[in-house]
Amino acid sequence: MDRRSFLKTSALGGASAAAASTLAAPMYAQGKRTLTMVTTWPRGLAGVWDSVERFAANVDALTDGQLTIDAKAAGELVGGLEVFDAVTAGQADMYHGCEYYFTGQHPALAYFTTVPFGMTAPEMMVWYYSMGGMELHHKLGEIFGLKGFIAGQTGGQGGGWFRKEITSPSDFQGLKFRMPGLGGETVSKLGASVQVLPGGEIYQALSSGALDGTEWIGPWSDEKLGLQEVCDFYYPAGFHEPGAALCVTSNLEVFESLSPMQQKAIEIASNECHQHNYALFVSNNGPALQRLIQGGTQLKEFSDDIWTAFGNAAKEVLDGYMDDEIFAEIRTHYEASMAQTSAWIGRSDGNYTPQRDRVMAAQAE
Amino acid sequence: MDRRSFLKTSALGGASAAAASTLAAPMYAQGKRTLTMVTTWPRGLAGVWDSVERFAANVDALTDGQLTIDAKAAGELVGGLEVFDAVTAGQADMYHGCEYYFTGQHPALAYFTTVPFGMTAPEMMVWYYSMGGMELHHKLGEIFGLKGFIAGQTGGQGGGWFRKEITSPSDFQGLKFRMPGLGGETVSKLGASVQVLPGGEIYQALSSGALDGTEWIGPWSDEKLGLQEVCDFYYPAGFHEPGAALCVTSNLEVFESLSPMQQKAIEIASNECHQHNYALFVSNNGPALQRLIQGGTQLKEFSDDIWTAFGNAAKEVLDGYMDDEIFAEIRTHYEASMAQTSAWIGRSDGNYTPQRDRVMAAQAE
Repeated sequence: MDRRSFLKTSALGGASAAAASTLAAPMYAQGKRTLTMVTTWPRGLAGVWDSVERFAANVDALTDGQLTIDAKAAGELVGGLEVFDAVTAGQADMYHGCEYYFTGQHPALAYFTTVPFGMTAPEMMVWYYSMGGMELHHKLGEIFGLKGFIAGQTGGQGGGWFRKEITSPSDFQGLKFRMPGLGGETVSKLGASVQVLPGGEIYQALSSGALDGTEWIGPWSDEKLGLQEVCDFYYPAGFHEPGAALCVTSNLEVFESLSPMQQKAIEIASNECHQHNYALFVSNNGPALQRLIQGGTQLKEFSDDIWTAFGNAAKEVLDGYMDDEIFAEIRTHYEASMAQTSAWIGRSDGNYTPQRDRVMAAQAE
Repeated sequence: MDRRSFLKTSALGGASAAAASTLAAPMYAQGKRTLTMVTTWPRGLAGVWDSVERFAANVDALTDGQLTIDAKAAGELVGGLEVFDAVTAGQADMYHGCEYYFTGQHPALAYFTTVPFGMTAPEMMVWYYSMGGMELHHKLGEIFGLKGFIAGQTGGQGGGWFRKEITSPSDFQGLKFRMPGLGGETVSKLGASVQVLPGGEIYQALSSGALDGTEWIGPWSDEKLGLQEVCDFYYPAGFHEPGAALCVTSNLEVFESLSPMQQKAIEIASNECHQHNYALFVSNNGPALQRLIQGGTQLKEFSDDIWTAFGNAAKEVLDGYMDDEIFAEIRTHYEASMAQTSAWIGRSDGNYTPQRDRVMAAQAE
């Protein structure tokens, strides 16, 4: 996924910032308080808006209505890409989005969403909740006067849709491929002509031949765009977004002005949404994948040499940011946790699951 | 893991039930209420008692101290195996434990902890939170006047420790192997002499040759027992407990007597503990596995034909309960969800992670 295609950046920035500023003033009438949450999403976007609504409903219920979250879609108060600056400046109280939309503000923010060759969703849980990832998120946030918690999770995003099968790294030479962010930087090193189109334009571009392929999110979301109608080949595994977290990030002063109970409600509701939203995405991806297969989509895997080429290019991309001390600290910490976690999960779940699936498939025959 | 070894069943059952009954009476003084939570655990047991403490602390913080959880270790009020009956009878308000300890009360309770050839932790999240698993848990609980939420998670439990390498199903013939529950029933079908010893007796039994092998939990917990000192071969992947959930199960009348805010605090704190506890176990298993390897433990995988033999025997064990209508309903629902989820995760994370680990290992050389 990418930010441009999810965001309706709006010309209302100036006027809406003033409106947000008014709304953000604490309302203590009847002991109640409303926080204005700007978001990077169009209202109702499947999966991500579910996280917005669940978080807001749980904070309301956990505080017995004393703390209400007033969620605004992108463009309603500020444009989707303006939420970071709006909350930093105190024009809104908090934002719901993806931290990697704001790598222009700090490149290390990417680690609190996803990075090429990074963690799967379960690995992210381990790092963030038990290895110190959350504390690094807060340390990075302090620089900007922010306090963020991850609060949603797409799970592994698909490797992409292609009109022709990809069998070697050289197939990316000149390939007109849509992939934003660090993933796009990576495939451009393989010679791809990287394009970033919003979601609404992808189908037409593939139909007309303006694009040879694209990534989007996963089977649930991709099927809604109709990508299976314009591409024959789908690669379920990709390198670029192995587990994308959503976040709820508050203005630090606003957060610290809340009661301990209200702060705890935001923290625990965020944590709970991370797991719940992961479940929601995956539970919809499973049936969607089945429908795609039944509809004739051909599932493929990239070959070892393609994965190696992705990996070497991604390393170059990430190495390019290592001059930044905080980026280097967070990357080193993240990769150490990932290696330890994968050493265990890879040997337990990683060996178990294929054996189980093989055995149960044989029993079903 | 198994119940006998975690539980200090106590002779205090009668007296303590009376004490629990007194303590369980709602205390409305100052608007506050305390719920007595009996548990199946010795106080302080690594990993599982962390879930008890986190849940209790979060409920307290989320309700601003209006709802307090008074957690009792096994034997303090009732024995660990008596908690189900104590809460059903209203002698205590809730229990923290594993539902599969109570398959004698209903065999389908196993599905809310783990079953042989069942779900990994991430698959459990998908089923429980987004495919209707929680609703089935509540439906089953209603029969007993209970309302349970999963609230902890060990992740995949190791396949076990062996003094000699296991290379074919016939190696289980006559093998003196410790494995409780449905897993034990399964390996006994392969000819193993299944024994169930409490944790504190395993080391000595392996040293003396009274046991040829054992399962326990995972590297973190197993290392604490010193199993690496008495067995050379460790099989990180096992079939018997691929992702064991802990639970917080309340007396239904007590739960329904709570305010909506208090009910929500219990639900969300439980959900949050499931993810957090999973992170805790895995984050400790990773480094422990590294220490085991450095200490000379030889990591092994069961061969395909051993997995097939496990699978066929496990199917026999589970099929034996299919006369029970609720068991059949829950098993069918669970296995359908597992197949759909695995079809997606297996093709995304399942292909991605080994490629990532291969590529990053090559880069590190």
